[in-house]
Parts: sequence; C-alpha cells; structure tokens
Amino acid sequence: MTRAADYADASPTQVREMIRAGRWDNPTSGMCAGYVQANLVVLPRDWAFDFLLFAVRNPVPCPILDVTEPGETEPKQMAPGADLAADLPKYRVWENGRLTAEPTDARPFWRDDLVAFLVGCSFSFETAMAQAGCPVRHIECGCNVPMYLTNQPCRPAGRMKGNMVVSMRPVPSHLVSRAVLSSGRFPRVHGAPVWVGNPEGLGVADLSKPDFGEPVPINPGEVPLFWGCGVTPQAALMASKPPFAITHAPGHMFICDVRDNELAVFP
Amino acid sequence: MTRAADYADASPTQVREMIRAGRWDNPTSGMCAGYVQANLVVLPRDWAFDFLLFAVRNPVPCPILDVTEPGETEPKQMAPGADLAADLPKYRVWENGRLTAEPTDARPFWRDDLVAFLVGCSFSFETAMAQAGCPVRHIECGCNVPMYLTNQPCRPAGRMKGNMVVSMRPVPSHLVSRAVLSSGRFPRVHGAPVWVGNPEGLGVADLSKPDFGEPVPINPGEVPLFWGCGVTPQAALMASKPPFAITHAPGHMFICDVRDNELAVFP
Repeated sequence: MTRAADYADASPTQVREMIRAGRWDNPTSGMCAGYVQANLVVLPRDWAFDFLLFAVRNPVPCPILDVTEPGETEPKQMAPGADLAADLPKYRVWENGRLTAEPTDARPFWRDDLVAFLVGCSFSFETAMAQAGCPVRHIECGCNVPMYLTNQPCRPAGRMKGNMVVSMRPVPSHLVSRAVLSSGRFPRVHGAPVWVGNPEGLGVADLSKPDFGEPVPINPGEVPLFWGCGVTPQAALMASKPPFAITHAPGHMFICDVRDNELAVFP
Repeated sequence: MTRAADYADASPTQVREMIRAGRWDNPTSGMCAGYVQANLVVLPRDWAFDFLLFAVRNPVPCPILDVTEPGETEPKQMAPGADLAADLPKYRVWENGRLTAEPTDARPFWRDDLVAFLVGCSFSFETAMAQAGCPVRHIECGCNVPMYLTNQPCRPAGRMKGNMVVSMRPVPSHLVSRAVLSSGRFPRVHGAPVWVGNPEGLGVADLSKPDFGEPVPINPGEVPLFWGCGVTPQAALMASKPPFAITHAPGHMFICDVRDNELAVFP
C-alpha cells in the first residue's frame, strides 16, 4: 500500500491522473511537495455571484485562486486541462446546508449550471513557516490542524453569511515575528495571522476543543496564532443553506500546477 | 518658545544647523518628519573593533547605519557634511562605565582617536506602524517608550558584553500581524519584534516598572510586543566599562539626511 509521502516528488499531473482513475481516495497532505493545494466550493450559477462577492468581501479566510466558466470543470488559471469533477480524491455533496453524500467522483453529481471555485489553503504557507524555522505543531503531531468557529461575522453578501473560521498554530514568543513574516508573504493562501493571543477575544473558550480538526498541545511560553481558514466557506454554506453545493472532503484537496512560491508577494 | 513639532517640516540640514548654533537642546522626536533619527556611540579606536564586532553579532538591537573614520566627525553615508560632535542637542560622556558629563556640545570632549557609530532607532518603524493603523502607545501618551533590560545575553565580542534591552509597545490581538509586517520592513532600525507575549520569558517580571523610559498602559485584549532596542549599546557600555565613551542623551538623537522609507527592504 502506498502512502501520501511516497508521492512527495510526483508531479501534479501524475497524481491527478491517479486520482481520476480511482486509485487514490486518501488525504493529499504531503503529496507533490511545493505545489499549491486548494479548497473546492461548487455552487449553482444562481448562487455563484453571492459566493464570489462573499469571498471578495472576506479575502483573508476566502482567497479565490480560480473560478470556472458555468458548467465547465477546468480550472484554467491553476491547472489547465484538469477536471475538478474527477481530480479530487473525495467530495462532499450538500443539499440545503445538509451533507447528503461523500463520493470519490463528483462527475455523476455535476450539472450544467455549476460554477467551481478554488480557494487558497494554508498548506502553502506552512511550508514557508517550517522553512523559516517555526514549528507547525499539527504536522509534528501527525494530525489535522485545530480549527475554531469564531464570534467574528464575515461581511455578508446576498444570501451568503457566516462567521469566520480560524486555524490555530502555537508558536514560541521568539518565533512569532517569523511566523507572521513567513506566512504574510502569502496573502492568497490566508496570509499573516488575523489574531495573536487572547483566544477569548475570538469567542474561543477552550483551545483543547476545536470545532473542526484535532486539538494540539500548546507548550509553556508559546502563543496561539490564529489564521483565516478555508473552512470558512463550508461554515457559510452550512449557515446559508443553498439548495445544492459540492465541496472537497476535509484534507482531500485539489493539487494545482502552480508552485507555492509563485503565490508569494515578495521573495 | 518653539516646540519639536514646529520643526516637523524642517529639513535635517536646517535643524542640525540650529542645534550646532546652540539654539536647540531638547529631544528631537517629531522633528524632520520622515527622516531617519539615529543613536550615537563614540569610542576610542582601541575599542572600536570590539564594538563593531558586537554590533555585527547582534544586529537586531545594534543595527549600524554609519561609522566615521578615526578622529573624524562626518557621517558620510547618512549625512555628508554634518558634524557628529556638534549636531546632536545633548550628549553623555562616560568614563569607565560611569556617566560623568551631559554637555550640549561634544567638541570640547572629542579626541583624535575617537570612532563614531550611528545606530538605527525605532522612530523610523513607528511611523510605518502608525501608518499601518497600529497604535503606538507611548506617542499616544506623550511619553518615552518603556524599555526593559532582559535576561537574554547578547553575543559578546572582545571586551564588549551585555544583555539585550527591548522596547515594548502593546498591540491589540487583531493588529499584531500588521505591527510585525510594518516594522519587519525595517531591519536596519530593529525590524520585527524579537518577542511577543510572555514577558516573564524575557525575565521581565513587571511591565509597569521599565528599566528605562516610562511605563504605558496595556489595555484588555492587547499583547505586549518587544523589539530590540538601541539602548542595548549603552547598557553594554555600562557593563563593559571602556575608559572613555560619548553617546547621545536619551531622546536627543542625530537627524540623518536619509528618509525612513529608504531603509525599507520591501515597499
């Protein structure tokens, strides 16, 4: 049996073809090292403008990397030739804000009126953080990043609304600036932390009980850093209840042809 | 009577001439807005190599902006034609680590073997912080920035040794990243914070009792940010006790011809 790490050096095309052929339905973390991985949100055209405006008004948690033409599944900016209905290992299908299916192939669910959005994911800045010498605790622990639904409302757009979801990474006091500067280079994948310290100010009462993902230990002398999180659109779908939507399943991302470093705003 | 703010729009040459003529002996904060102000350290040539190496080994608290030729007083990089022995409003003279005089003119004390160093000062990044929308509490309060002698030893160099001194500015959780990113653009004037939160980890027991400067209020939901501080060389002089030294008096800085923005490493 192969592991994600066995595909660290594979090209995005190779891995997407393997996924499309039904030979990989596991999380993508660790595959195609150095390449951007993205969240997927798919909505009927009728809701697409509301969602796009929601993303534009809330670019930190919802940075848009690519948008397909209605009915098409090719992300022309991030991976020309790819198929967003087939090239992710696992999908979630939502009806009226409720999860109704978790298929490994979304082609049977696709419709002519669907618009697909790729949203930036924190994997990209985590590489830069680690290269800058900062700990990335959930990677050290081999678990999913802890995420919290905050008390901070996103700016609504039409029928789309919801509070911001943040991911949390604890960092020792002497490395906080480095974590901010290294992630801050990547505004298209959430950029710098939106909040440092004082979790209660975000309405987060207990860091050991995340709303999504898994808890991680915070060592003495470490400060919790909170980043805008790409789960925010999924939380907004659950709050806004569009009649139909498709997303990726958590951790089962779309792998782009663009490299992380191409998203940096300065070197 | 004129105030520093009356000279916000004056040129560095005008203000230095006024100081040299003995018509200004007050602090320089607020004068020549947008221009770099610098700390001064003057040592006999015999100690100059030790100090320069100390600065090179500790560039965050001791960023060197200019060094004169032995016996000369002209800082050719930062203000050609200026006179470091006459163009600061107040000096301190040190013998064997003890303060022995506080003259407004250092020319009577100058010697042929003296080397003068200009060291970056946080005034430059405070402008950038304020422009980025971050509070600069001691400016709001109209007092000197609070500074603390930490438990963090600088890397020694020859006879020069001492612990790092940090300045502290409290920032609300949602603006910490902005404070880091805006100050981080200016590594030649201390750059990003060296420490965020957890003052006890720096050996600072009580933020309301700074070792230099004045205390400032920290509001609920604010995090203390600590930057490397240009008082570190003065603390090192007190610890290392060279037979003779001259520095600026606190707050009475040298005003350079270079603008703050020219020191930014990215725009």
